[in-house]
Amino acid sequence: MTASAPTPAYRRLSVEERRSQLLEAALSLFAHGAPEDVSLDDVAEAAGVSRPLVYRYFPGGKQQLYEAALRSAAEELQQCFDEPRLGPLLPRLARALDRYLAFVDQHDAGFSALLQGGSVVETSRTTAIVDGVRRAAAEHILSHLGVTEPSLRLRMTVRMWITAVEAASLIWLDEDKQPPVGELRDWLVEQLVAMLSVTGRHDPQTAAVVEAVAADG
Amino acid sequence: MTASAPTPAYRRLSVEERRSQLLEAALSLFAHGAPEDVSLDDVAEAAGVSRPLVYRYFPGGKQQLYEAALRSAAEELQQCFDEPRLGPLLPRLARALDRYLAFVDQHDAGFSALLQGGSVVETSRTTAIVDGVRRAAAEHILSHLGVTEPSLRLRMTVRMWITAVEAASLIWLDEDKQPPVGELRDWLVEQLVAMLSVTGRHDPQTAAVVEAVAADG
Repeated sequence: MTASAPTPAYRRLSVEERRSQLLEAALSLFAHGAPEDVSLDDVAEAAGVSRPLVYRYFPGGKQQLYEAALRSAAEELQQCFDEPRLGPLLPRLARALDRYLAFVDQHDAGFSALLQGGSVVETSRTTAIVDGVRRAAAEHILSHLGVTEPSLRLRMTVRMWITAVEAASLIWLDEDKQPPVGELRDWLVEQLVAMLSVTGRHDPQTAAVVEAVAADG
Repeated sequence: MTASAPTPAYRRLSVEERRSQLLEAALSLFAHGAPEDVSLDDVAEAAGVSRPLVYRYFPGGKQQLYEAALRSAAEELQQCFDEPRLGPLLPRLARALDRYLAFVDQHDAGFSALLQGGSVVETSRTTAIVDGVRRAAAEHILSHLGVTEPSLRLRMTVRMWITAVEAASLIWLDEDKQPPVGELRDWLVEQLVAMLSVTGRHDPQTAAVVEAVAADG
């Protein structure tokens, strides 16, 4: 080890890394307290930086930092379902869920706050951010199902499953992350297949999707 | 018709009726605009009463009215699943869903606002109100399933279904109330059975519930 080898705590971060670090610290603070109770001093302290540095990155102050933190978490969450359209469908979905659940696991209270409203959500703008994530996830899934013009029932089923996954994730966090993440993931995939099968009884397009999924496996 | 026969518009309302009328008017206004854009004058106008009358009922002003409106909607919603434990299970559940969907139909934007956060939800207190509704609905359903100490997976499944029902209801409102309410209700009941069946593959308690439901029909 040379004298110049940086220790993790004091390593100089790139602009992007610093920004991410501040967003991460902010999200976690906003997750535990109402925005009005979180100060930029708290964020600076949590990130181990000075208050002026926080202002340099977020000159708009707390509101800007708060929305940026939500937006960054939302973007990350949204990308979970952006899986290459290669190979059988269910393993693809399982990989997407693995990423989603890894996000949930890592962000914990930040994830709850993002989705539940909880103490973080204060404006309809933040609700719109979360709704955008749900919409994007639904589009990814429909595109994996090979559907470009989904029927109403198929769209409803996919959105129902997405909120069911959210509910399961929130309870999972509350329950010390039980069942184990791999079991949770497989169970959620099975739930989607079962929900699609029910819808397939009423909707020919969904029935075709269910058949394709079965043939695919 | 005698001279004293009241016309509906001018009929003297009881305290409870008046209170309900104001809450209803408030919920609908808060559903369409952010609380800060809704004045007590608007509420008085929407309800066809004077502003002092609104203050007489809600001396705490807008915040009190706003929370009371949410709470009243939440209580009504919560009672939907309070169905007598008589007769086969699935028809009971269908009746509960009929009430729930009638509430959704009647309150429309107010329902969306209550659940989605949207422009109505501003504080973690309102989130807690909605979460209380979900919790109560889950308890009602578990008690209909004849379960007093539900396994984690069974609890998760019921909560997943409840949020799925919420998602379906919101989309249903967005989609000009299609499919017809009776079809939506039957479909949602089938979804619950399918979700329970998947969970039953992993959880003996849920498997027993699924068997009981099948034997019951």
